[in-house]
Amino acid sequence: MTVEAKLAIESAEVVVGYKTYVKLVESIIKPGAEVFSGMMGKEVERAKVALTKALEGKCVAVISSGDPGVYGMAGLVLEVADLKDVKIPIQVIPGVTAATAAAARLGAPLVNDFAVISLSDLLTSWSLIEKRLHAAAEANFVIVLYNPQSEGRKEPLMKAYEILLKYRKPETPVGIVRQVGRKGEQATVTTLNELLNCEVDMATTVIVGNSTTHVVGKLMVTPRGYDL
Amino acid sequence: MTVEAKLAIESAEVVVGYKTYVKLVESIIKPGAEVFSGMMGKEVERAKVALTKALEGKCVAVISSGDPGVYGMAGLVLEVADLKDVKIPIQVIPGVTAATAAAARLGAPLVNDFAVISLSDLLTSWSLIEKRLHAAAEANFVIVLYNPQSEGRKEPLMKAYEILLKYRKPETPVGIVRQVGRKGEQATVTTLNELLNCEVDMATTVIVGNSTTHVVGKLMVTPRGYDL
Repeated sequence: MTVEAKLAIESAEVVVGYKTYVKLVESIIKPGAEVFSGMMGKEVERAKVALTKALEGKCVAVISSGDPGVYGMAGLVLEVADLKDVKIPIQVIPGVTAATAAAARLGAPLVNDFAVISLSDLLTSWSLIEKRLHAAAEANFVIVLYNPQSEGRKEPLMKAYEILLKYRKPETPVGIVRQVGRKGEQATVTTLNELLNCEVDMATTVIVGNSTTHVVGKLMVTPRGYDL
Repeated sequence: MTVEAKLAIESAEVVVGYKTYVKLVESIIKPGAEVFSGMMGKEVERAKVALTKALEGKCVAVISSGDPGVYGMAGLVLEVADLKDVKIPIQVIPGVTAATAAAARLGAPLVNDFAVISLSDLLTSWSLIEKRLHAAAEANFVIVLYNPQSEGRKEPLMKAYEILLKYRKPETPVGIVRQVGRKGEQATVTTLNELLNCEVDMATTVIVGNSTTHVVGKLMVTPRGYDL
């Protein structure tokens, strides 16, 4: 967590967020602050509650995990404010997104150009996700997969695996990090070939190396191109 | 800066980094700590100094700005350690990379899939950079450009502009942030059409919206896809 985010949460009179994320910051919420924690899928409602409270003059913090601007609540709050014509100051406080947090645990896989793709097809069509996977793999981007798999949604990762194998060798280093920065964090460097044999859930970030990514000790590194 | 990075710098007995970045953290370096600050282009030498000092038993912090794993020193230190067969614990501490820091100032442009591309062709061939620009633009990624332009290197941004215009409308929102998180920070939301008329230097991050990115007030937002 950044120093700035910590200060913002500590000073908030109202805290709004998905219950799992609110729990993660519980210990730094001001005593007496109002807390609105809710379910996955109720994001629009939470944005509305936050704006209503802010209009009452309260200092409100809307919580995302990682960075609020990467598949997080920042856009939604700005959009709902615009739609409702709410004129209050809204500040987005950046954070450490799962891509770079996971990369740090795996070594340094993102030291060259990379693409970030969510495999969740709830809000983006699968055909567009597939197109992005092809494009990123063909242009030799390191690829970071968010929301790779859930209990009821196994197909996207299987399809992504097949697409990636069209462009990358089976021995391409792949990093898998579960619960990054949280209790029970697990980081593994494996190969593309083994991807489907690994434990992957919604709290997992997957990083697929490019053609130059290699294993250094137990870590994966994508060279920047320096002459060593 | 994250709480974790702050603690690491505060407790370091040796601090190594590019002089501009060392200056940014000067106030939190422990009194009496050894400081090795150096020139751009001397990254390999700095990695070697850091490892030598660590082998002497010192606690060493190697500084990057933003996130050390995104075009930063993390990979180089791991690679040099491997090459020299240096067996010491090395920890990569993630940070807030310019992409998400800039995004926060601009609104929420990264709330959907995005690609990060450095326009510096010092360490990556221009033909590969060009290929990545085409791929990312065609697959409708939001595109973040690092190292977009310097005094002596104007051509890459001009070429990138031409490539982007093949796939994106001239009125596509573009965000330009200089010196993000530092003194003199400037953030502007403009359009792709105006990109070459803006002040852009090596300390600038450029974010090019995808086909759905729109302007909300003075900010740019890429919708996640929620039904509002």
